[in-house]
Formats: sequence, C-alpha cells, structure tokens
Amino acid sequence: MNTFPSTDPMATQAWCRALFAQLVECGVAHVAASPGSRSTPMTVAADRTPGLEVSMHLDERAGGFFALGLARATGRPVALLCTSGTAAANYLPAMVEAFHSGVPLVALTADRPPELQGVGAPQAIDQDGIYGSHVRWAITTAVAGTESSGEAASVAHQAVVRATRPSPGPVHLNVPLREPLEPPANDPPPTGLLPLPPDRVPIEAGCLNELVTGPARPERGLIVAGPMDPTSAGITALAELARRTGWPILADPVSGLRRGPHVSHAPVLATGDHLLRSEWADDLRPDVVVQLGAMPTSKGYRLWLDRVGVGRLIAVDHLGRFPDTARLVTDRVAAEPGRVATHLVDRLADLATGDDGTSDWTRTWMTAEVAATSAVADLVAAAPFDEPGVVAALDAALPDTATLVVGNSMPLRDVDAFLPVDHRNWSVLGNRGANGIDGQVSTAIGMAAGSDAPTVLLTGDLTLLHDLGGLTAARRLGVDLTVVVVDNDGGGIFSFLPISEESHIDHQRLFHTPHGLDLSHVAVLADATLYKPTDRPSLEAALGVTVKTSGLHLIHVRTDASTNVRLHREAAQAVDHALCVKEICQ
Amino acid sequence: MNTFPSTDPMATQAWCRALFAQLVECGVAHVAASPGSRSTPMTVAADRTPGLEVSMHLDERAGGFFALGLARATGRPVALLCTSGTAAANYLPAMVEAFHSGVPLVALTADRPPELQGVGAPQAIDQDGIYGSHVRWAITTAVAGTESSGEAASVAHQAVVRATRPSPGPVHLNVPLREPLEPPANDPPPTGLLPLPPDRVPIEAGCLNELVTGPARPERGLIVAGPMDPTSAGITALAELARRTGWPILADPVSGLRRGPHVSHAPVLATGDHLLRSEWADDLRPDVVVQLGAMPTSKGYRLWLDRVGVGRLIAVDHLGRFPDTARLVTDRVAAEPGRVATHLVDRLADLATGDDGTSDWTRTWMTAEVAATSAVADLVAAAPFDEPGVVAALDAALPDTATLVVGNSMPLRDVDAFLPVDHRNWSVLGNRGANGIDGQVSTAIGMAAGSDAPTVLLTGDLTLLHDLGGLTAARRLGVDLTVVVVDNDGGGIFSFLPISEESHIDHQRLFHTPHGLDLSHVAVLADATLYKPTDRPSLEAALGVTVKTSGLHLIHVRTDASTNVRLHREAAQAVDHALCVKEICQ
Repeated sequence: MNTFPSTDPMATQAWCRALFAQLVECGVAHVAASPGSRSTPMTVAADRTPGLEVSMHLDERAGGFFALGLARATGRPVALLCTSGTAAANYLPAMVEAFHSGVPLVALTADRPPELQGVGAPQAIDQDGIYGSHVRWAITTAVAGTESSGEAASVAHQAVVRATRPSPGPVHLNVPLREPLEPPANDPPPTGLLPLPPDRVPIEAGCLNELVTGPARPERGLIVAGPMDPTSAGITALAELARRTGWPILADPVSGLRRGPHVSHAPVLATGDHLLRSEWADDLRPDVVVQLGAMPTSKGYRLWLDRVGVGRLIAVDHLGRFPDTARLVTDRVAAEPGRVATHLVDRLADLATGDDGTSDWTRTWMTAEVAATSAVADLVAAAPFDEPGVVAALDAALPDTATLVVGNSMPLRDVDAFLPVDHRNWSVLGNRGANGIDGQVSTAIGMAAGSDAPTVLLTGDLTLLHDLGGLTAARRLGVDLTVVVVDNDGGGIFSFLPISEESHIDHQRLFHTPHGLDLSHVAVLADATLYKPTDRPSLEAALGVTVKTSGLHLIHVRTDASTNVRLHREAAQAVDHALCVKEICQ
Repeated sequence: MNTFPSTDPMATQAWCRALFAQLVECGVAHVAASPGSRSTPMTVAADRTPGLEVSMHLDERAGGFFALGLARATGRPVALLCTSGTAAANYLPAMVEAFHSGVPLVALTADRPPELQGVGAPQAIDQDGIYGSHVRWAITTAVAGTESSGEAASVAHQAVVRATRPSPGPVHLNVPLREPLEPPANDPPPTGLLPLPPDRVPIEAGCLNELVTGPARPERGLIVAGPMDPTSAGITALAELARRTGWPILADPVSGLRRGPHVSHAPVLATGDHLLRSEWADDLRPDVVVQLGAMPTSKGYRLWLDRVGVGRLIAVDHLGRFPDTARLVTDRVAAEPGRVATHLVDRLADLATGDDGTSDWTRTWMTAEVAATSAVADLVAAAPFDEPGVVAALDAALPDTATLVVGNSMPLRDVDAFLPVDHRNWSVLGNRGANGIDGQVSTAIGMAAGSDAPTVLLTGDLTLLHDLGGLTAARRLGVDLTVVVVDNDGGGIFSFLPISEESHIDHQRLFHTPHGLDLSHVAVLADATLYKPTDRPSLEAALGVTVKTSGLHLIHVRTDASTNVRLHREAAQAVDHALCVKEICQ
C-alpha cells in the first residue's frame, strides 16, 4: 500500500480561516453555502469568521443566483461555497449572468486534492477553469493547509481585487482539500490580513469632455440609460447632466433612472419605446446619443436608430460591453456612467450658468412624454385586466421606497411599456447581463435579503417554475418577499414573434409550452400566503397588505398572452395618435 | 447604416433539416428541447423530422438530465436542444454526469451569428466550448444555412460517431443561427445522408486472456462489478465468467449484476460491503481482483483492499476511468466489461469442461453470502421501520420486471447494504459518474420514458427538492413513475460523517440542512397520487398499486437519520456475528 500526502487538520483549518477573514477584510459579508462533505473545513471556517453571515442553499444553482441578487442589492462582493463535483457545475448560470452584468461574486469550490484526481474518486471532476471565459479570474489554489495562512489571505485578497476592480465580476477559487476534513475545536485566529487597495480608477470621459463642456455642445442630444447599477450619487449626477445639457434621458426600466427624486428636476422619458416606434420620431435625428450600460430593453430605440441614424453614438460602460448590434457606435468611453456624469457635472459647474436645458429639443421630447404617458394610462384604465393593468397596480400600490425586481422576457417589456416616470425612491432591478429566465426567483430572494425596502418580484409563470426550488427556500432564508406571477400558462412572449402566426407550426406545443400546473399549489408548498386577484383593485389591495407584512407572499394573476399582445400594440397606436392630435408631429 | 450578412430562411431550414435527419440516420430517436426564439429553425426542423420524437422542457438543467436518463434506459444517443445564453449553461451538470458515466448526448445549442457576438446582443454569451473538458467533442458549426446541407449532415454524423465510439459520452454542437428565424412552410426533404460506420472496436482482454484461460488460473479471484451499463448479453457473459472461474462477483447495486436470471447459476454477492467490513475477510487476501466499470459504492471494499492487499488488481473499463484511489491497480484493460467477458467465455468454451467454479474459495464466499443475507433480513424484519425497511419493501413489492432508479448519497448506500441478490429481471440504475444529487428526478423521468417496465425512483428529500422542477414536469411528459422519497428533513448522510459527533460545530444547520417543507404538497403541485405509509406493509401495499397504475405517484416515507445510522451499523455487526457463529471464520 502506498502512502499519500497528509495535511494537518489544524493547518487546513488555519488556512481556511485566513481565507475567510481576508474576504471579510476586503468587504465580503456573506457566504451563500451549500451542504457537502469535501467543503467541511471551509464551511466551518466561514461559520467561525466574525462579520460573515452564512446562508445555506440546497441547490447550488439557486445559491448562485441568491448571491448575485444579494451582491447587487448591497453593492458588496458575495462569496459562494460548495462541495466538489456537479455542485460546482450548477454555479455556471449565475456566473455567466454575473460576468455580463458585472456583479462581484467569489465562487469557492471545494475540490479533491491532486492525488485523488483522475483515479475515480467520487465527485471528482475537472473543476479547473470550469466557468471558462465567464470569470474575471480563476485559479486552483494550493491544497488548503499546505502553504501558510498568509498565502490563503493573499489569494483571497487577489480574488476580491479582481472581482471588484477595475470592472466588477465573478472570480473562481477552486480549493483542493485533503482528509481529515473534520476541523479541530479550536483554531488560531488569523493574522496578517491585507487591506483592500483603494479603488483609484482614473475617470476618463474621453470625447464627452469636449462635447459636453465645450462651447459647441450639440442641442440635439439624447442620453440612453440602459440596464446598469449606478450608485445614488451616480443617479443624481446623471440627472443633473441631463438637466444641464437638455439632453433627455431615455430611461430603461432597470437603469436606475426611471424612478427616484431626481426625475422632478430632470428630463426623463419612460415612454421612449412608444415614442421611438412612432413616425413622430422620424424627424428627430439626434446629433449625439450617449448610451449608458448594457443594451436597452427597448427594441423601438434600436429600430429608430436604424431608421433615422445618429451623428455620434457614444457608448459609456465600465464592463466593456458597449452594445452596438447595428454598428453605429462612434466612440467608446470605458468608465462607469455615474462616475463619468459626476466628472462632467463637476466641470459644468465651473461654467457660467444658463444651462437649464429648456431648449426646443428638450421641450419637444418632454411634451411628447407627457402626452404619451397620459395616452398609455388612459388605455390601461379602459383595458381588460391583464399584464399592463398589473404594472399599473404595482405603480399605484407600492410605497415610496421599494425594490421591484422584474423578470426577463415579458415582464420587463411590460414594465418598459407601462411604468411611468415617478419621483418615488424605487430600485427597479433585473438580470440583464445574459437576459436568462433562470434563477430569477433566487435572485429576487437575494435582493430582498440585501434590501431594507419592501421587495416585490414581477415574474412570468415559466420563469417562476424554472426556479421553483428557489422559491421553496424563501421561508427558510427568512426574507420578506412578494412574488407577483403573471400566469398565461406558458411563454407569452412567443406570441409576439412572427412564428405565432405561422399556421404550419405547432406553436402552442413547441414555443408557448403550457405547463398545466395550478400555481396556487406552489404557494402551499412554499408556505406563502396566496392571493388571486382578478382585477386591478383587488391586486392593489393585496399588494397593500403584502408589502407591509413579513414573510413570503404569492400573488397569482391569470393573464392571457393574446390580450397582452393586443394591448402592447394598442398602446403604441394610442401614443402615435396622441402625438398627432397634440400636434407634436412637428 | 451598415449592411449585415443575411441567410435565406429556406437554406437555414434545409441545413437544420439535414442535421436532424442525419441524427436519426445515426440512431437518435429523441430530442429533449427547451423553448426559445433563436433556436426556432432547429425546433421546427426537429419537429418535422420523421422518426424523431420531441419533448419540451421548461428548465434546460432538467431537460439535460431527462435526456441522460432516456439515453441510459434505451442505449441510444439522445439530442438536447436549447436557445442561446444561460440556457446552454444549464446543461453543464448533465453533461458532466454524462461524461463520467459514458452516456451519449448530443447537445445542440443555438447561438447568435458572429456579427452579433461581442456587441451586446441579448442572450449572447461565449458558448464556444462552454462544457470545457466534459465532452468527447465540441464544435461551433458554420452559421446554419451558409454551407450545404451535406455539411450539416456531416457535422451531425461526426457528432454521433464521437458520442458513441470508441467511448460513449456527450458532444456539443453550437449552432449559430441568423434571422429571419421563421422557417418556410415547406422545406425540401434532406438527401445525401451518411450511414453510421459499424462499431468495430477490437476486443483486447489484455492480461486477462492468459490469466483466465491459461493453465495457471488463480483460485482466489474476485470480480468486483462497479457501476456500469452492461447489455443483457454482457451480463450473461459476466455471470458465466464468474461461474467458470469460480470467482465471485461482488455486485454493486447499479452494476446490472445484482438482479436478474443470471444470479441463479453464478456466484453473486450482494452483501459484499458487510462481508468486507468484517474481520472475517481479513484472511481472504485475493490473488486477483478484476474490477469492472466505475468505483464501487462499497467503502468496505476499499478498506478491505487497503487492509489485506491483492496480488493483482485488473481494472476493466471502456471509459478509461480505472478507479484506483489507493494506487493498487496493476493492469488496465480498456474495453467494455461485458464484451471482455464475452470474449473470455468464448475462449473458455474451447477448454475441457470441469470449470464449474465449486472451489473452496467460492464456497467460502457463497456460504458467507447466505449467512449475511439472512442476518441482514432478520435485522430489518425486527427493526423499526426506516430506510432499510423501505429497501426491503421495494424488494418485496416490485414485480418480476422493474426499473429501480436509486438516488445518490444515502439511498444508494441503503440499497447496497440491504438489497439482496435476486433472479428477477430488474434494471437498477443510478448516476454514478459524478455522483451528484442534482437532476435525479429528471433522470428517473427519462429512464421511465425509455423503459417498458414499471419504474420506481428511490430518493432522499434533498435530492427530490434539488430537482423539484423536474418532478412537476412528469405529468406533462406523460411518464409512469413512482417516486419513493425517504424524508429525514435534511441530508441524512451527514449523520454518518465524523463531523456529526463534533459538539463544537452547528451540524444541524451547516450539514444536515433541514428544509422544513411538507413534501405532501409537492404531490399536489405535481399532480401525483400521494401515499404516506408508516410501516412496511402499508408501503408494500402502496407500491403494489402504483407500479400497476399509470401516471405519477409520490410515496412519502418519514425516516430518521440517526435510526438509519444505527441500523447500518447494526447490520454490519449482525453479519460479523453470523459469520463467526456459523464458523465461516475459517
């Protein structure tokens, strides 16, 4: 019999303790862990680390998205911890979303030590680089405890640095662990921790410096705020930039800019998708568009740019995405939009006053916004209760401070089309990195865990079912969350595609994919209070209760895909009509 | 505005039709698809392909495991089909399991065409090689329709060849698709398909040729059948090999060898884990061990080998796994165990008769097997109703032909310890590639879909909850399945680990992880008939009904982790005692 390497359990534990202590030193306050044996020393070390909260997740995929939501809600990096094998594989979807939406996650995957690789040990798979190109950094560390605790601290420090700067995103530490895995009762407190270096990213606003603050600032400018996570200071600066330049902000639902006190004194458009789909906008060729963050939800925006063109399209993004499917971007500014705005506003402050943004250009857009908002509201008020009415009810019922999490596919488009600008202090969030419907419930649970405000998830039925396991964990995780599920028994968004009109294809089975489940039973299983409103007043009444009541609530609204398709089209027509009637047709 | 490449939808559709027609030509009969837009031409082409069944899965992770189960039950390659983005990422867990358990899957992931990569198009992520080293082959094809249909057939042909020979496993075709995605009403029938080449893997039994069929065959031999998927011909040959050589087969629960008509005329051991943990086995140092397939579940086997050593340890596996954590393997035979056995038995048939295997060595093992089986049965009969009693009830109640799917972690160990050898024609299956608890329900649903026999899944509660979404799809997928869930409100296996006895660790919260859910509600949601037996007769009665009744059935058995720990230990003691009393102590 051969002899194999052995590692002193005290050394293993000291190494793991240093790892977690360093994560805390660098700002990590939470580990979303999943049960396992190989990960024992890390689980115990995490539990023993002061300042670190440990939540347990039966399903690593759900755990991954919980961490993503928590990191986005708190603005802090969050750690993940799982055992070896397919457990690690289940993190991939959340890692992909975190990569594309720039969320700092530190995935810690326990692994077998080298002597147990390739010899048929159970749950031993190739975890080295398992997240491929979807991480900012990945490393397989030394076997825990075979190097000094200082080395553990060093690798944890490096992980947080790479997960947070210059561009936030996920990193992967694959940690081989050797038996014995049971930690000693007392392990030494870690020493020699490293401070996180200051985040001194130089702000370079590039061409925007001259364009915005120079003497020849174009009048016809538009700021297009796509999905992003600005700080509140960034939001204020962006609003101020819009006010000073007179360039309206087309605010994506999850840009952070559609809702908040800043809208009272800045030109912010919520009806952009309707406006830009209208012929009314055909003559409004902009001289400059400043496009922030990820690709906006609005297809109307993309169609309009294709139609009218643009003098200069400046993409600003700190994740390097610079969305540009039509190849219209002329300039790229690699910086966080809120910081760029702060930088520009500071320079604008030095200028003589008089920049109050009340140009004809601005007035044209804002007059149209008022007319369109009114037309859409009138339509929804008169329409049968369906997804637009659900958005209107959320608008009416949610309090001054709230977190609204919006699922991908239809709900996000519903909110884009039907949620007006408002001064209330709402965080409106979604997963717009890779735009998947997976993990949405767990993301919302993480956001609820990281938010002091009442949190409401608006989701479709398929999205809810995709993460059913996540929902059943909400009670155990102790979060307060209201889930509003718009249930058309399938993928309603496919009813918007041309294929829904092709008679030679089994659209219902292959695309709409009805699930046939009674979602009321989901509430019973997940121990959620259940509401089944059938009209807008009863939905508003339900929301009025749930946002003030702790625990998990499921509000189940039956909707109809074809009705929703019709209302979206009618809203666009109503806006079109309103713009002509009011002679904002120019 | 730039102009972009365009592809004629008729060319796209012809390409996709050729792809699927070629898959069918190569033996694929099923596509497990998930809804999406980018994948439209492939979904429609699959639906239009004669000889191809299309099932729809809301969750790609569950779809992946369904395909895995179906491929294992039918022995045929199964295709997967999803849209772009995180949808593809959700296949990773099933791909990892398929890689390690040698299951032929052809994953088809729709992708954006090159001009939409890296420009912020929605659901565009890096799908090229997203399954890393966990595939036999991966390629990003040409944009569908930009090359001839012959090229589509060629790449599909190559995919099935690589997924099936020489070693089966998963492959990945990443298929970029260009708008318009709506297929024409009539597309041309594909031509120019390629036949699958004959599978002419030469059989090389290596050192086994001389050892088994030569004049100096050792008497003290043992065949250790680990997890594998032998054909029925292979099982017959392996049993015959054991009979002729007198080398008993230590049959892992999911080796295919514990149950079937072959056990009537071959020395097969089901109590191996108990026997090898006993001091009784200390003097039974084998001259040769022939270890088949993946690492056996039995830890007793590994401990025994470490304790007594072995003259020669010959690993036989066509997936190249050759499990050998203790570095005892002396020879490796790279071939499918059943084929090796067929080859050897053919050569043994040429020898003079007289090899009936009734040596002292064989009799010692088989006498012990009888004594141990009886001791275990007596213990279970007298014990409180817990997991051992559940296994005994399954043994008593399942019919002559049945498929028993066994979840990882505790249920597999329960079956290993408590399911005796029997002549009934059962398929006992598990996911023993990467040994994960993920996707187990969907795997069982796929196995049920591919099996004519009544199918029963034995699973723990955490495993069930990990794939809750999979369970809710069972009704829609139209399978007949009985799920027996042994529910100890958490991960019972952690109670077997030393850490459960450490008082300074919060074992309950960090390891056992109680979910606190009433699984009865799962039955209501999934539209399953529910049974809650509290003793063995009522469980047997429930099984007697469910295996004869179509649809989905959930049998919920409350168990207790500490009781199960105790019964496993008592079983080992009872066997130890029986071996001494019967003076098989040598």
